[in-house]
Amino acid sequence: MKVDVVQKVLKANDDIAKLVRARFDEYGISCINMISAPGSGKTTLIETALKQGLSGVRIGVIEGDPETTRDAERIAKYDVPVVQINTAGGCHLESQLVLQALDKLPLDAIDLLIIENVGNLVCPVGFDLGEKSRVAVVSVTEGQDKPFKYPRLFQTANIVILNKVDLLPYVPFDVEEFKQGVHGIQPDVPILHVSCTQGDGVEQWVNWLKGQADKQTNE
Amino acid sequence: MKVDVVQKVLKANDDIAKLVRARFDEYGISCINMISAPGSGKTTLIETALKQGLSGVRIGVIEGDPETTRDAERIAKYDVPVVQINTAGGCHLESQLVLQALDKLPLDAIDLLIIENVGNLVCPVGFDLGEKSRVAVVSVTEGQDKPFKYPRLFQTANIVILNKVDLLPYVPFDVEEFKQGVHGIQPDVPILHVSCTQGDGVEQWVNWLKGQADKQTNE
Repeated sequence: MKVDVVQKVLKANDDIAKLVRARFDEYGISCINMISAPGSGKTTLIETALKQGLSGVRIGVIEGDPETTRDAERIAKYDVPVVQINTAGGCHLESQLVLQALDKLPLDAIDLLIIENVGNLVCPVGFDLGEKSRVAVVSVTEGQDKPFKYPRLFQTANIVILNKVDLLPYVPFDVEEFKQGVHGIQPDVPILHVSCTQGDGVEQWVNWLKGQADKQTNE
Repeated sequence: MKVDVVQKVLKANDDIAKLVRARFDEYGISCINMISAPGSGKTTLIETALKQGLSGVRIGVIEGDPETTRDAERIAKYDVPVVQINTAGGCHLESQLVLQALDKLPLDAIDLLIIENVGNLVCPVGFDLGEKSRVAVVSVTEGQDKPFKYPRLFQTANIVILNKVDLLPYVPFDVEEFKQGVHGIQPDVPILHVSCTQGDGVEQWVNWLKGQADKQTNE
């Protein structure tokens, strides 16, 4: 009975995700869905890319949080279109919320739409938002056991960001075990080491983002 | 329709939580429920208390994770009874799972049962596990915005641990804003600053735990 309810919710989500994806195709938009625990640095990763600039790739952002417009306000400073979704305590974004948010964005002026999901390593994973790619973010302060304990995100990620690597000298984090955990789940997924404060990996992160937009444009 | 389903699940959970609480009363067990984002340091907080010793308070532990027995193995080294609950991808513990776990614990040899919930700032909050007290843990690397963006946990916490304060020199974390956020939601909740690696606040944490067991004994 319980499983049946979950399946119905997921099916409804997948049906609406198809509509979202059709809108993206219509406007030539590439979409990425960023998933991590709360406080892993998703917003700062977006801010850092916007600071660097993306060589003509026009960015739009959807921010998901249980409450507040704090993250959208941070992004708005970079003068890009941004919509905040508040889930009123909800633990993940669903495609219906994204579809509503699209009405508030200038879709013909966006090449790459970045969705920052609610901070949660579990619930967002099952919900397709119409994205082309998924970004999994783990900060080194969270411990190298995360891919083992929370494997499902790492099954569906197109790239894994190991974030806040500037803190490695101060925390007990085994990089090799983390890599083994991720590649045990998905052998070929790239793992980028990034520090937005020190600059490590920022160029690769920006290039990956630009590549996402280019891919869409070339299809 | 969706809300109705959620209410039914929550009501079933609350009914079973009453049975769990009755078992705790029968055995004179005090129970605490630890909730945080993944990687905030819940397991290390438990390990640190076990290392210090709790002056005759007999501890039992239930570990909740989507997958693996890693956390239970860490706790078992301290020679205390421990049960691992794997939720098979599920995002929170429910009282039914705790009730099942109780059958695997020597209840007459436990004064204080510590439940470490699945790492998630959202979903565990709505599910009563029969606990006497809730511990909310936030590490300084997660940012001071967490009480604002994820307020519901802080409404129901009996104590808030600001963890990993040894990392404060290396991260942009505004302690005052964090405190304002927590106390704006619940003015009198204590906030403990803890570093398990440096020892800050460990004595207060251990004393708080002992106080939880004493309270139960004196009732």
